[in-house]
Formats: sequence, structure tokens, C-alpha cells
Amino acid sequence: MIEPLYPKSFASDNHAGVHPAVLKAVAAAGAGDAPAYGDDRWTGALADRLRAEFGEDAAGLVVLNGTGANIVALGSMLERRYDAVICPETAHIATHETGASERLLGVKLVTVPTADGKLTPADVTARLGERGNISAVQPKVVSISQVTELGTCYTADEVAALARAAHDHGMLLHMDGARLANAAAFLGCSLREVTTDAGVDVLSFGATKNGAMVGEVVVVLRPELAEAGPYLRRQSLQLASKMRYVSAQVSALLTDELWRRNAAHANAMARRLADAVTGLPGLSVEWPVQSNAVFARLPHGAITELRSRYLFHTWDEPSGVVRWMTAFDTSPEDVDTFATDIHQALKR
Amino acid sequence: MIEPLYPKSFASDNHAGVHPAVLKAVAAAGAGDAPAYGDDRWTGALADRLRAEFGEDAAGLVVLNGTGANIVALGSMLERRYDAVICPETAHIATHETGASERLLGVKLVTVPTADGKLTPADVTARLGERGNISAVQPKVVSISQVTELGTCYTADEVAALARAAHDHGMLLHMDGARLANAAAFLGCSLREVTTDAGVDVLSFGATKNGAMVGEVVVVLRPELAEAGPYLRRQSLQLASKMRYVSAQVSALLTDELWRRNAAHANAMARRLADAVTGLPGLSVEWPVQSNAVFARLPHGAITELRSRYLFHTWDEPSGVVRWMTAFDTSPEDVDTFATDIHQALKR
Amino acid sequence: MIEPLYPKSFASDNHAGVHPAVLKAVAAAGAGDAPAYGDDRWTGALADRLRAEFGEDAAGLVVLNGTGANIVALGSMLERRYDAVICPETAHIATHETGASERLLGVKLVTVPTADGKLTPADVTARLGERGNISAVQPKVVSISQVTELGTCYTADEVAALARAAHDHGMLLHMDGARLANAAAFLGCSLREVTTDAGVDVLSFGATKNGAMVGEVVVVLRPELAEAGPYLRRQSLQLASKMRYVSAQVSALLTDELWRRNAAHANAMARRLADAVTGLPGLSVEWPVQSNAVFARLPHGAITELRSRYLFHTWDEPSGVVRWMTAFDTSPEDVDTFATDIHQALKR
Amino acid sequence: MIEPLYPKSFASDNHAGVHPAVLKAVAAAGAGDAPAYGDDRWTGALADRLRAEFGEDAAGLVVLNGTGANIVALGSMLERRYDAVICPETAHIATHETGASERLLGVKLVTVPTADGKLTPADVTARLGERGNISAVQPKVVSISQVTELGTCYTADEVAALARAAHDHGMLLHMDGARLANAAAFLGCSLREVTTDAGVDVLSFGATKNGAMVGEVVVVLRPELAEAGPYLRRQSLQLASKMRYVSAQVSALLTDELWRRNAAHANAMARRLADAVTGLPGLSVEWPVQSNAVFARLPHGAITELRSRYLFHTWDEPSGVVRWMTAFDTSPEDVDTFATDIHQALKR
Repeated sequence: MIEPLYPKSFASDNHAGVHPAVLKAVAAAGAGDAPAYGDDRWTGALADRLRAEFGEDAAGLVVLNGTGANIVALGSMLERRYDAVICPETAHIATHETGASERLLGVKLVTVPTADGKLTPADVTARLGERGNISAVQPKVVSISQVTELGTCYTADEVAALARAAHDHGMLLHMDGARLANAAAFLGCSLREVTTDAGVDVLSFGATKNGAMVGEVVVVLRPELAEAGPYLRRQSLQLASKMRYVSAQVSALLTDELWRRNAAHANAMARRLADAVTGLPGLSVEWPVQSNAVFARLPHGAITELRSRYLFHTWDEPSGVVRWMTAFDTSPEDVDTFATDIHQALKR
Repeated sequence: MIEPLYPKSFASDNHAGVHPAVLKAVAAAGAGDAPAYGDDRWTGALADRLRAEFGEDAAGLVVLNGTGANIVALGSMLERRYDAVICPETAHIATHETGASERLLGVKLVTVPTADGKLTPADVTARLGERGNISAVQPKVVSISQVTELGTCYTADEVAALARAAHDHGMLLHMDGARLANAAAFLGCSLREVTTDAGVDVLSFGATKNGAMVGEVVVVLRPELAEAGPYLRRQSLQLASKMRYVSAQVSALLTDELWRRNAAHANAMARRLADAVTGLPGLSVEWPVQSNAVFARLPHGAITELRSRYLFHTWDEPSGVVRWMTAFDTSPEDVDTFATDIHQALKR
Repeated sequence: MIEPLYPKSFASDNHAGVHPAVLKAVAAAGAGDAPAYGDDRWTGALADRLRAEFGEDAAGLVVLNGTGANIVALGSMLERRYDAVICPETAHIATHETGASERLLGVKLVTVPTADGKLTPADVTARLGERGNISAVQPKVVSISQVTELGTCYTADEVAALARAAHDHGMLLHMDGARLANAAAFLGCSLREVTTDAGVDVLSFGATKNGAMVGEVVVVLRPELAEAGPYLRRQSLQLASKMRYVSAQVSALLTDELWRRNAAHANAMARRLADAVTGLPGLSVEWPVQSNAVFARLPHGAITELRSRYLFHTWDEPSGVVRWMTAFDTSPEDVDTFATDIHQALKR
Repeated sequence: MIEPLYPKSFASDNHAGVHPAVLKAVAAAGAGDAPAYGDDRWTGALADRLRAEFGEDAAGLVVLNGTGANIVALGSMLERRYDAVICPETAHIATHETGASERLLGVKLVTVPTADGKLTPADVTARLGERGNISAVQPKVVSISQVTELGTCYTADEVAALARAAHDHGMLLHMDGARLANAAAFLGCSLREVTTDAGVDVLSFGATKNGAMVGEVVVVLRPELAEAGPYLRRQSLQLASKMRYVSAQVSALLTDELWRRNAAHANAMARRLADAVTGLPGLSVEWPVQSNAVFARLPHGAITELRSRYLFHTWDEPSGVVRWMTAFDTSPEDVDTFATDIHQALKR
């Protein structure tokens, strides 16, 4: 029996537990023999589901965590030892992966300041001035996060424009879709519409934040990039021997669009929180709420007061911006109680 | 419901499923919030158990797979960009980790031919002739596998002698203990007696082959090496956000010595198989059976016949040596049926 | 006999030839045997000179080029696989070394926007907010360029303040001194006053731009960092077998302060050029001229006109900023002719 | 004036000085401006000479040292992060480059025991058993040394057979030709006959041991591999800014086959030494003398005696094998005196 020290956490969708359907799927993959390293029927079934979701050319590689997905994805796209990746300054690969891209891939990330976490085609083309200069790294991949680290979403058209900008200059488009489910739920579209159809070449597709226990997927959408993936996954420490227990989790989320229900619920809870606090004196919501995160600026005293009772992250200490996240298992009551406590904290 | 295409697999202990106690522990860690990235109570409880098992100075880091454990372990021990690792030619890190040590750590593995997969102190000291030569890498770590890749075990005294050889020359001793449980069961000793007490500095401690779903542990036994671990685990793609579900699995195996019962059973099944086939005309057992593997040499025709009906690995194609492995869930009947079929195959 | 296609180049101090004293020293190191890989008397003599120049604790390592010097220097300072380097956005290591730091060292460069290429202590401390966060790289080295890539210089006090900021937070200070000679000449101080005495821990000391043929020096000023250098130099492809011919060049520049005469002359020529063009209609000098570079903004038409006849680099295409560099062998006549041509180009 | 502590060194052809023609060429490249980073006329002229020597498709890249040449060469050939290199156990890249291949390229070297330092096609094909196994590295390059580290030479036919074996299996052939000149002189063939014509894909072509000061060349013989070279050279710290002074050296050696005269002389001196000591009681010559090295086995007492007066390397301490090398500037008198002293030492 778990007795939380805190009420519902608003720190991260990673603080949530496992969705019951995921746990059930793991148990069902249970006892008895199965070939190891992904040669099992559960992994085969997942590959089928991924093709159904992302298109016939989609090659899915189950991996073990989000940074692992990004490393395998980028590793599949980078060819030459002087290739570089263009990404927003806020990109998770640039800020909170302990330098894994630089250390494990040896790649330079060319980071771009943005207003809202979203890259534009002009941002990309402005970084191509040193093509052919042997003293400069050569951009080969554009990497965007969908949902961004600021909770905003790219529309399918915006993704497509970035894909064109990349492809027009001989580059590829990577999407870090740790919260792709939340984006598709917000945009009201299929997973495919903002990925395959919009020109994404390789996708890191998140499952953990959506209700899985451990597991993500790299989805290679451009067939000629698919060969290296299985080797890179193995070498990059992302292949579990008993892979069936990971594959079964992702399959559960892809069954009957459980992923969408989970994401839509989390999004609705963030919306509910944003609505409840918008207009409170001393508080401002920083970026459009387009997923399951609310970024709010409020007085340091109120932050301190709230942090004594709730788990959440300070996003920018000097300016007093915090991040509140909801999850598939956040309840309306959790949100309402929190909103009331925010209200109280602002009054003091 | 699983319907295996084959009878019980003898290919690897990785083909086995999950022990029921592990599955139960995962479910118990189930719903509700918990801090992510290992700051949860299950991970805390596991740390306590590991200290109980390996000594008060043991710092445990749950990781996601065996190669990951080795990379984090070696990464914690290697300091200088020209440090090298001495290991047997048969070491898993040298043969079947897709070059992860070279690629992710940038380290040269100095490999040593052995008769039975076991390194000796003399093997180590013979590789120190270029100490101080700036054109040569400088050995800093000795890495051994317990159980070895040939199914043999080091005694505690043999491990201690290697630790002394390493320490006497300013080096450290790493143990790849993917099957440490099987070794301790074979030797009839505690986990601690062949690791901490024998002078091992950092241990990769396997759980998956012993009945877990996904998860291994790096155990740092020398306190001054412990600081880097959490960063290296994060950077090396071995930190799950919902770590509680991994920690709970390992804790289940450490409860009431479930690990020993699982390992002892697997070992007994290998012993049973070896006993049943020893002396069969045309078949020879290659190395002492000291764990859950039997290496046998038999005619190519018999191998082909058996492979049409059973899963197992050919260890050395030209000489006709195969590897048969048992697991915690191999039954005496599985073994007896297989032995009978081997007998038949040899007759043709 | 060389017949240049162009008049004197203003593109880089790298376009200049070799100082006659350097060539003479190379010839003098000439024939006969000498131990290889730096165990020769010329390299020994250089080590003595470097100690005389930078202090008794200075350990000098001759290397083959500037990027090599930076890689060996940074490699000597970075310990842990998650250490990072804080440097200005304009730093050569960040912009024009083809990602060598990321590729060869695996390190993330944390880049800081600056007004004039110079880092401040506040810039450094503002990047330390994620100390102890395992998902963030951990700054270990502050790297500055002296002269900066914008031609500006740090005073000795400014360097000392940065060293204190670094040391106070457990970090080290690296100086990329590809043009350190020019800085010391501008500041009117010894090499030691802006390096050793100001708290620099490891220095990349440039010789090529000052009149050498091929060769630079890494000077380790903190003894406990010196052990790794010889191995790192060898591994990082910076050790010549016949090192005497490189050492002799640097010694020539350090004899009777030839380095200072060469640098002071180059600086004076830049000053002369800046004076000659300051005030010309349509032209503005961008940063204080504190070394041998003049950055000027002028109309694109004038740039095009001048580039048809002179070699120099466009620094920022959109804004029309160009870089004009002088060298030890630039003559007053070269400058005056160029200034006249600039004047003419602006008139059209 | 140099007063050597020892008579002529027999330790390495690296102990020799610079050939007068090389020094003269450096001086001739002397003063005045030239574009940097290889865009100069001397480097252009060298490219022409290399095409004349190795064929119209040969793309030469001047680099700074032998390990640098090997890293740039291998880096041009390796594509995927799990590619491996097959080479003899004695290969310089495997033994005396401080692990640069593993550290800078992240590549595993699959080393092969040999009798005489020479790889055979059967050695290569025997290492291809794990093609397609994602847990194993995938051989992509075969690397041989010509002359080998044991002083032996491959015939053109032997090289061609290895090239066929490599190409037949989708691999490439690299030649570490640090002493290619000595091999061509021994074989009495052109440089091209044992490289381009024999199917070598990328060559490290040595100049330093042949009489240069500092400088080697990577020669890419397969056009589709040529694109990456200039970037890799820059990133791998092998591009000098004043490259003309390096290019001029190599050109001098390629003028009127100076390389062949230098190499033939060195070879003849080794032959003279071998002839003088063959048959002496207690001494045996270990491998065929096919270049400028003599490997001899002799009593430890005699080795000690000789080492007190001469510089040379002990090759294998336990068995008492030493290496004696000659150079372009070794004289018959040097050899005869040394042979006499060997004779004396054996008598005691």
C-alpha cells in the first residue's frame, strides 16, 4: 500500500504510475519461453500495429527510455563524423540528457533561440551559411520536439514546412515525440498526420509518460535509414533481452487508441488548471496551453509556499516561472484542490 | 495463451519468462504517484537490500540491461582517456556487445586467450610491460565474468588473487556478474564472499537471467568510485523515469534468497543434462559444468537434427561445439526429454 | 620565386610566411640523429625556455596545430564523462574546429552570447544553476580566447577575475592563446602576467600566427594536471616523431622576445589601418582594435569591389562586417595602399 | 653543432634527421603570403605529383603524422557506428597509437595473430562468421601495414588477393604505408603497383621515416570515399594552417624518385647488417629482412652490453628479440662498426 507524502504530483507525467491495461498486458506476456532480443511474437505484433499507425514503411524499434530513443534515432540519421543537428535551445537533447548526444554520438548540437520552443524554416536556413566550410560542422538533421519542452505544439503544416526546409537542403527531420500522443490529442489528428504524412524521417515515440512502465519506440519512417537501427539499438544499450515485456506495454497503449484517451485526459486536466488560475492576481500563464503542461509565473513567496506541499519544478528561478504537469491519472479533484491552494498562496 | 513452437528452449536463460514473484512485485509497485528517476521508496528499499547483501559501503544503481550495467560500471572505473581494460578473449564485453565499450567509452580492450574463460594473475601482469610508454594504452581495469562465458566459475580465492594482482599495480577489478547468482549457488557461498570480500571494486549484477523482466544492477563496492555513477547511468541511457518498476523486480529476487533458489535450480538442471549425455558415443562435454550451461561437442549431423526441433546456439561451428543452457523454469522433464532426443540424434 | 596573385593578404595572419629566424632554427636542428618523440635536446631546451617564461611549474608540450593544442589542453582538464566547458559563443573551439571538441572529447560546450567576445565572471556563475542535477552536464572548465575572435583583449585583472570565478566553483580556466603574443604586446605585459599570474590553469600558446611554420604549445600551469599531457598529445595525433624541428621553431620565437617584436609590429599595422579608415564615410570600425585585427562594417558594394583585389574574410554577410588582419610581415606600405583602395571603393 | 651521445642510432628511422633536399624545399616555400589550410600552390603541386604517382583518381591529403594519417584514412572508410577493422595483432594501429582508433574513431579492431606480421585472405574470411548478428561488430575495413611491423613485405599479388577478399565481402582495404617506400624499393616496383593497381582503397603514405621533417599523406584511391577527407583532416587535428611547408617536403621526396633512393639505401644497410651478423654464434635473425629492419634474437647479456653503447629497441624482452633499424642516412661504416660490436658482445 502506497502512502504518498504529497497529494497528486504536478512535477511530471513521469510521476504517474502504470495504466492498468499496461500492467495487464505485461502479465499476459508472462511465463513460458520466448526468443530473446525482440524475436518474439509480442514484438512482432507491435511492429504490425506501428505499421498500421504510421504507414507501411514504418520500422519500429522498441527501446528502453526517451534519451535512448533519441540517441538511436539521431544515430540512424547522422552519417558523417562532421554532421550536426539543428535544434531549439530548449530541446531536451540539448538541455537534460547529460550531454548524451555529444558524448555517445560525438555530435554538435547547433541550438537556436526561440520564443515558444518551436523552430521555424527560417531558423533552419539561417544556420546553413557555412555549408562546405571544412572548419564548420555540417548540419544534417533538424530535430524538433512535439510537444515542445514549453508545452506548445506544432501543427501538421508547421511540421511539413520544416520537413521541406530540411529536405530541400539535403537534411533529415527528427521528431522527439516523448509527448506525441498529447500533441495528436490536442490537434485532433492521427499520429500519422503529424509525422509520416508531414515528412518526419525518424520519430522518437514516447510511451512512458502516456502510461507505460518502461519503454519507448524509435519509428524509422524512411526505409533507407532502417538498416542500422537494430545494431544501433543493441550498441546503444537499448535492447532488452526479454523484449516481449516492453513491446506488450506499447501494444496495450496502441490498442483501441488508449494512448489518445490517456493523452486527452491529461491535456484536459492541464486546461482545467490553466482556466482555474488564469486571471488570478500576480499570476500569468506563460505559453499557450496546448498539452498537459501549464507554465505560470508567480511571486517567489507563493512558489515557496506551494512547494512545501506539492511536487513541481521551477522552470526559471530568477523570473519565477514554474511548470505544472498533469498525467493520465490526474483527477479533476486533484486539479481543483491544487488550484484552490494556488489561489490561497497568492493571497498571502 | 502462449503456444510455443518448440519445446523448452535450451538457447539461453534469456528465453525464460518472468518469475511469478517478480511479476507480483511489479504489480504491487503499481498505481499512484512516485518521484521519478529513482527517488522513490522501492529504489530506496533496494539500496538497503544491496547494502545488506554486499556490505555497508555498497552503492547500488539499478540499470536497464547487462551491456548497460557493464558500460556504467567500466565508466565509473576508467579515469584517463588512455586507460585500458584487460579481459579474456571470450568476455561478453569483447565479443557480443556490438563494440559498445569501444564506441561509448572509447576504451581499448586488451584481450587475453584463456583455456576455460578464466583470467589468472599471471595473465594480468604479463600485460603490464608497457606501463609508462606514451604510445601504449595503460591498463586500469581488469574485467572478469562470473560465471564465465564458458560456464565456468572462479572460486573466491581466485577472484581475490586477481583483485590483489590488479590493486598491486594500481588497477581495479570489475566483475561482469550477469550470472553471479549461478556462481554463488554453485560455490555455495554468499554473494558477498565472491565479490566485496574478494576485492571486487565494481560489479555488474544480473537479474534478468535469474527471473526478472528487465533490470540489472551496478554495485559500486569502493566508495570513492561512487560519485560518478548517477550521472553516468543517466548519460548512458540506463535510467528509467519510472524506476520503481525496475527496482521492485530486483528486490523480489533478493527477498528470502529467491535468487539462490532460481540459480540453484537452473544449475541442477544443467548438471542433470550433463550427467545424462556424458559418455554418449560421439559426444564430449567441453568445460567443467559449474553453472547452468553445458558445452558439448557432437557430430554436425546430430546438431542439425537437434536444431530442427530445439532452440540452442552453436558455439563453434567448425568444431561442432554447441551450448545448452537451462533456466529457473527448466523442468527435469524438459531435460530428460531433451537428453533422450540427443541420444537418438547421436544414433543416426 | 613566389609571384603572389594578390598584394599582401589581409585575410589572416596564417597567410604570412615563416620568420627568417624560425627557418634558420629549423635548419640548425638539421642533420644527424636525435631521439624521436620529443626526447631530444631542442625540445628539452624549449621546456627550459617555457619555464623561464611562464614559471617554474610550467610544463610545456609542443603540438602541431591550434585545434590540437585546444584538444590536448581541454583533455587535460576534463575528468568526468559529464564535465562541460563554458565558453563564449564566438569561441574558436565552438565555431571553427569542425566540432572537434564534441567528436574527439565528447564534451558539451555551453556557449554564452557576449558583446565583444569576452566572458565575464557573471556569465560563468549564471551557468551553474544545474550543479548536481544528474540530467545536466556539469561545468568543469571555463575557456576564453586571448586575443578574442573579435580582436579584443582581456586585461590581466579580467583574466584573474575569471580564474577566481572558476576556481571558487571547483572549475579550471583554459586560455586559447593562439594570439597570446598579440595580447601581451598590446597590454605591454609579460606572457606570464596574463596567464600564470592571473590564474590560468592550462594555456594553448600559439606560435604559427606569430611567425612559425608549424607548431604550437600546450602549457600546463597547474602541476597536478600535467601527468596526462604526454599520453593525450600522443593519442590526439599531436606528437611528431622528429619533434626537434617543431621545438626549434618555438624556441626561436622565444629568443630575445622575437614573439613580442613580431606581435607588436602586427598590432601596429592593424592600428595604422584602423586609423587610416576611421571616419571614412560609410565605414565603421566594430570593436576596439586591441590586436592585429580590424573589424569594419561597410557597404556590400565596397566589399565586393575590395574582394576582387584583396584576400580577406567577410565576418557577417548580412550586416556587411569584414575582418582585416595584419601579420608580422605586413608593411606600412601594404597598409597604406590597402587603405587608399578602401577609400576609393567607398567613393563609388 | 650536434654532438651525439651515441654513435648512429639503430633504434628507428625516426631518429634520422631531414634530407637536405627536404630542407631546401621548405626554405624555398619560405617568405611571402600564401593562402592557408592547403589552398596554396605547393599543395596543389603535390596533388599533381600524387596523381602522377598513384593514378588519376588519387586524392591526396597531406597530414601531420602517421597516426593522424591512419585516423583520417580509417575515418574515411568507416561508415556505420558498428563497423570494425580487421588487422594483424602486430598492427601499429593496434599496438602503439595509444588507442587512438578506439578513442577517436570509436571503432573495434579485430586483431589476428600472424606468423610474420602479414594477413592472409583466409585470416579475413575467418572473421566474417557473425555477419548480420546485431550483437557483433561488422567488419568493414581490412588494414595491413606495408612494410609490416616485423619488417616483412607483401608482394603486389598478396595485396591484390587481400583486396579481392575484402571487396568480395563488401569491405575496403587500408594500407598503413608508413614505410611504403621501403617496400616498393625492396619489391622493385612502382608505388602504384602495390597500392592502386593491387586494389588498395585508402593509403597512409609515409614521408617522415623517408627523410621528411614532419608530414605524411593520406591517399584516397577510390573516388567515392574522397568527399569526407578534407573535413576529417580538419576535425582530426591534421590540417596545418601554413600547409605549404608540409606539402613542399613531400614533393621533394617525390621528385626524381628521391623516396626510392632513400629507401633503397636504408634497405641495403639493413641487408648489410643482417649479412654481417647471420651465423654469429648465439644470434639468429627472426624474420626475413625485406626492408630496413633486422630483428635478431641474442643472449640477454649481449643485449645489455650493446644497449650501453647503442640506441635500439628490445622487441620482446623474455625471448631476447631486438629490433635494429637503418635509415636513409645510415652509412656502411655505421653498420660495420655496429656489426663488429655485436660480434664482440656475443663473445663475452
